[in-house]
Amino acid sequence: MVKAWAQVTGDGGLASDKRMAAPSQVAERIVRKREPLNLECPVEGLSSRLTDTELFYTRCHFAIPHLRPETYRLEVRGAVNKSLSLTYENLRALPSRTQVVTLECAGNGRAFLDPPAEGVQWHEGAVSTAEWRGVPLSEVLGRVGLQQGACEIVLQGADRGRPEQKPLPEGEIPYARSVSIEKVDDVLLAYEMNGAPLSEEHGFPLRAVVAGHYAMASVKWLTGVRVVTTPFYGYFQTIDYAYWDWNKEEPERRPLSAVALKSMIVRPAKRDQVAAGATCEILGAAWCGDSEVAKQEVSTDGGGHWETAEFLDPSTPGAWRHWHYSWKVPPEKGVYVLKCRATDERGRTQPAEHNLNYGGYVIDHILGTAVEVV
Amino acid sequence: MVKAWAQVTGDGGLASDKRMAAPSQVAERIVRKREPLNLECPVEGLSSRLTDTELFYTRCHFAIPHLRPETYRLEVRGAVNKSLSLTYENLRALPSRTQVVTLECAGNGRAFLDPPAEGVQWHEGAVSTAEWRGVPLSEVLGRVGLQQGACEIVLQGADRGRPEQKPLPEGEIPYARSVSIEKVDDVLLAYEMNGAPLSEEHGFPLRAVVAGHYAMASVKWLTGVRVVTTPFYGYFQTIDYAYWDWNKEEPERRPLSAVALKSMIVRPAKRDQVAAGATCEILGAAWCGDSEVAKQEVSTDGGGHWETAEFLDPSTPGAWRHWHYSWKVPPEKGVYVLKCRATDERGRTQPAEHNLNYGGYVIDHILGTAVEVV
Repeated sequence: MVKAWAQVTGDGGLASDKRMAAPSQVAERIVRKREPLNLECPVEGLSSRLTDTELFYTRCHFAIPHLRPETYRLEVRGAVNKSLSLTYENLRALPSRTQVVTLECAGNGRAFLDPPAEGVQWHEGAVSTAEWRGVPLSEVLGRVGLQQGACEIVLQGADRGRPEQKPLPEGEIPYARSVSIEKVDDVLLAYEMNGAPLSEEHGFPLRAVVAGHYAMASVKWLTGVRVVTTPFYGYFQTIDYAYWDWNKEEPERRPLSAVALKSMIVRPAKRDQVAAGATCEILGAAWCGDSEVAKQEVSTDGGGHWETAEFLDPSTPGAWRHWHYSWKVPPEKGVYVLKCRATDERGRTQPAEHNLNYGGYVIDHILGTAVEVV
Repeated sequence: MVKAWAQVTGDGGLASDKRMAAPSQVAERIVRKREPLNLECPVEGLSSRLTDTELFYTRCHFAIPHLRPETYRLEVRGAVNKSLSLTYENLRALPSRTQVVTLECAGNGRAFLDPPAEGVQWHEGAVSTAEWRGVPLSEVLGRVGLQQGACEIVLQGADRGRPEQKPLPEGEIPYARSVSIEKVDDVLLAYEMNGAPLSEEHGFPLRAVVAGHYAMASVKWLTGVRVVTTPFYGYFQTIDYAYWDWNKEEPERRPLSAVALKSMIVRPAKRDQVAAGATCEILGAAWCGDSEVAKQEVSTDGGGHWETAEFLDPSTPGAWRHWHYSWKVPPEKGVYVLKCRATDERGRTQPAEHNLNYGGYVIDHILGTAVEVV
């Protein structure tokens, strides 16, 4: 049973004056790094189904390339029957699709790891949702024709530089990631975000949007689509954005791919004051890359007991789902730790601890939000 | 034209009293690291076709496991028609092959890199040659039968621990490497080295010997042979013992495999004194993992002019080849830089500079040996 969004958009239970204004009026992004540009969405920006474009988090690996639509080309090549060089106009003239997709950085939540992990210290806001419009990758591939044995598509960006983590290749490298041929239908070559052309920081003139995968797969400033017949072992899927898979008796290095099941509390915020004896509306979001969120639970006693929350939206593959829970705040004053956990269609639930084989990535374990009952 | 070995085993041209005694009488290995054990062969030990076992270099990644022949088992499993568990006696009863193979550590020569590279600081002696006896891997695989799609064989050692280079998996891992199915005929499961059972440090009771590959492939204390149908991405072929391949427009991470073409001057040693106007016999060795050494050259003026050296042995795939050059030492006293370079059957010659995409590995560039003419 999905509760109407309007029913929980008030400030129920919040004792402070801190009211939710429209994010674009009061909030701005948090600078995590200036060069290259890494900006986090403030927690308030995560409360709506679509994140305002100006609050959408930004993750850059290198300096932003400045591409001009007049000279821009998307080169489609590799194991194809016929290479293709597409202009911006060509792309906009192809059949398009519009899709709501949540993008989450694989390192979202890294700042909460103990011991700390290297990399940009994202808190909760390296996740945002937009409505994307563009050409399905399958449309483009259908026009070039795949050769026998094609197994992956390498998506190459125009951004390039020297990465940070060892072992390092010599010289500058382009940002690139591959997606398997089985994933092609989930890839949009997007030129619009929330109804407007992409901004430079979000990948103008064209970016990939890979629904269900961590956002490192959604290559920005996309200039190359290369079909390959052997798996691609680029830097950003072997050294960076990779993990140790202990599926067998010894670990193997694999590229990160599907977004792990995760949920977060958007409201109340950490250290908020809530009124003893009142009803506090706990609002949150949950998402999952390779299944759908089926159940959401909330604990108001640090994980001792769990109650079922109500969803505010229907489930949409690749996009987050908001939920709420009406907490009858106890009369006893003091600090309370709120927690949330999601369960997906496959019966998986968020883990209690971070899995160290992911290093500073896939931070999907249950975290607490401490609030003060006054 | 191959010159008889005896003709160049004198001390021709060496002005000092430093005569070559049998290595085992005077020389001992150089300790590069005690835990885990890493011992380098002294340069004098590289002058003979077979390296004395007590001078053969040792490379360990973890503590040496102590395996008892009574309880030892080699487990052969994975994509096979029937798993097999072989005792030490079973292995010794199978058809055997004897083969002379040179093993070189992929980091041999690392101490000469500028800027320095992390890892054990090997000089020239992380290379040695022995006569190995054991069971061809193909014999064992023939007994279990490969399933459709088998593409690699994972060789697993009994040694395990936590490796050093990031990104690290959580917990201890076993030492393991894979060889492709095409390479199987070059793999010996060896139980004897130079006519005696393997010593503990060299892998007792059983080790792999992969002719033509850097020695990281020749897994010691071999207890597992696992046939796989997808490429193996273990730690020791993705993070460690791997390199950046710039074959395409962007680098890809690949496991090190074939030993690069290389040659070295064994005698005279660095800083030796040679008599002005005399004839100095320059002795060296050359080897190559995926071709054969076809030509050897020597320069006595730091690389300005090159003269052809004479081979002392016929070419044997997988083993080094010794060569010599009779240098007419000029009458002018001073420091002279000797250099050597090999060329293989495919026409490749040693490079002038180290390729940084190999990191601290594949140190195959031309180095100098400075001697003093007195």
